[in-house]
Amino acid sequence: MKLLRYGPAGHEKPGCLHADGTVRDLSGVVADISSATLSPQMLSTLTATDVDALPVVADPGRIGPCVGAPGKVLCIGLNYSDHAAETGATPPGQPIIFHKATTAICGPYDDVELPRGSEALDWEVELAIVIGKKAKYVGEAEAMDYVAGFALFNDVSERNYQTKMEGQWTKGKSHDTFGPLGPWLVTKDEMGDPHDLAMWLDVNGERRQTGSTSTLIFNVPTIVSYVSRFMTLMPGDVIPTGTPPGVGMGMKPPVYLKVGDTMALGIEGLGEQKQTVVAA
Amino acid sequence: MKLLRYGPAGHEKPGCLHADGTVRDLSGVVADISSATLSPQMLSTLTATDVDALPVVADPGRIGPCVGAPGKVLCIGLNYSDHAAETGATPPGQPIIFHKATTAICGPYDDVELPRGSEALDWEVELAIVIGKKAKYVGEAEAMDYVAGFALFNDVSERNYQTKMEGQWTKGKSHDTFGPLGPWLVTKDEMGDPHDLAMWLDVNGERRQTGSTSTLIFNVPTIVSYVSRFMTLMPGDVIPTGTPPGVGMGMKPPVYLKVGDTMALGIEGLGEQKQTVVAA
Repeated sequence: MKLLRYGPAGHEKPGCLHADGTVRDLSGVVADISSATLSPQMLSTLTATDVDALPVVADPGRIGPCVGAPGKVLCIGLNYSDHAAETGATPPGQPIIFHKATTAICGPYDDVELPRGSEALDWEVELAIVIGKKAKYVGEAEAMDYVAGFALFNDVSERNYQTKMEGQWTKGKSHDTFGPLGPWLVTKDEMGDPHDLAMWLDVNGERRQTGSTSTLIFNVPTIVSYVSRFMTLMPGDVIPTGTPPGVGMGMKPPVYLKVGDTMALGIEGLGEQKQTVVAA
Repeated sequence: MKLLRYGPAGHEKPGCLHADGTVRDLSGVVADISSATLSPQMLSTLTATDVDALPVVADPGRIGPCVGAPGKVLCIGLNYSDHAAETGATPPGQPIIFHKATTAICGPYDDVELPRGSEALDWEVELAIVIGKKAKYVGEAEAMDYVAGFALFNDVSERNYQTKMEGQWTKGKSHDTFGPLGPWLVTKDEMGDPHDLAMWLDVNGERRQTGSTSTLIFNVPTIVSYVSRFMTLMPGDVIPTGTPPGVGMGMKPPVYLKVGDTMALGIEGLGEQKQTVVAA
């Protein structure tokens, strides 16, 4: 199932994408697709829903982030060996975890803000895991039981804020609109194996990133299990799993985004996003 | 006003501490004291409330975290010059920001978990800022307008996870129960100037930390203004502002917490906390 949320920011309704290309209204079945509503029971209810019988939404308008109000956004850093190489970093021996502020989450086609004075705005196409069940000290063998599904994510980053302003990466990862999520939460039953998906990102129509989740250093079960050793994962938590090569920081010389630039990105089976850069 | 939340975890009710020492029930006035309910309007309503007329809660039972479901917990690192010195770090030229997982927040007297295999569990008494109004690109001069009040916080940390497991501090700061918050959210009108408050922490009855918010490197308006450059602060967001000297990591040799140990801590005007360490 391809779950989505449509409508104005903060007032999204739950829906899904029908095989015929229409958006169907799920608000008669579930209140929302969010940290407050996601659960194994809800996912069972959705799986049992007759999608053909759901009302067609004639004009869904804006598509919002496919998960509402995630409690945590936990990114995995340097998780593609070729991306680690382009940043000059040694591939990590265990997953690197950092937080992105939850206020950064936005819809897949929303404008992305260039922070005031920013000179190093960058892109990162990523496969995001969406948690469906409370997870603490979960083993790798059962880790997939705690996953609701997957979504496309752009881990927008300000590299000077991330690496040149002392301390942790938080400053460069957390500005409003630095987390376009969606268009769809593709449930894991529909997704199948997430470890062989083509992924790409264009800036102003030029291909910048080309990769595949087949080159993830740490795969989905390993990540879920590992993170659950350090904190409890809750339904609706989002875990972007890292980006393949081709970010602006890795170009020689580095190339960064300016107002008016566009990003378009996609992952096989997870749909596409497009954002325009605007001034904050 | 000293706002608090009482009752079982996840089912707390709003209350306040009367000058006569009783807990009064605020559930007839506000639904909760949380990220979903805090606002300038709510704070005005509370300020106008006749506390004498509120029902006495005969037995409040457990005291929960004084803010429910904060959207973000943004800690300021190395913000006391003498603490920076004890950790061997150079005092930062600008505030260091890191996230603590929101799932780490707990009540002021709740047990604190020793993660499985942990060998470096440490304590940090801190003054926490609670945001009362949405803040983005806020100047220092008006920063206090965005503050609801202050609370006592224990920034419980696992030092090996924080510094020896690659990457960011997130791993050492985010375990469940690593964020006792409260007992009270003291509103800023009652608090007055937060920059000259005595603070202390005992482990097993022995004094470990003694300090004062007068030695903060970056003060409250500077922190709120600075953080709001990098992300939007929302009502209910919590910003612990750093810890004075005396953490276990700074002792020679380092001393860490084990199961059965107790922490007691306090800040002038913000009450006291006490936790016992238990196995995760």
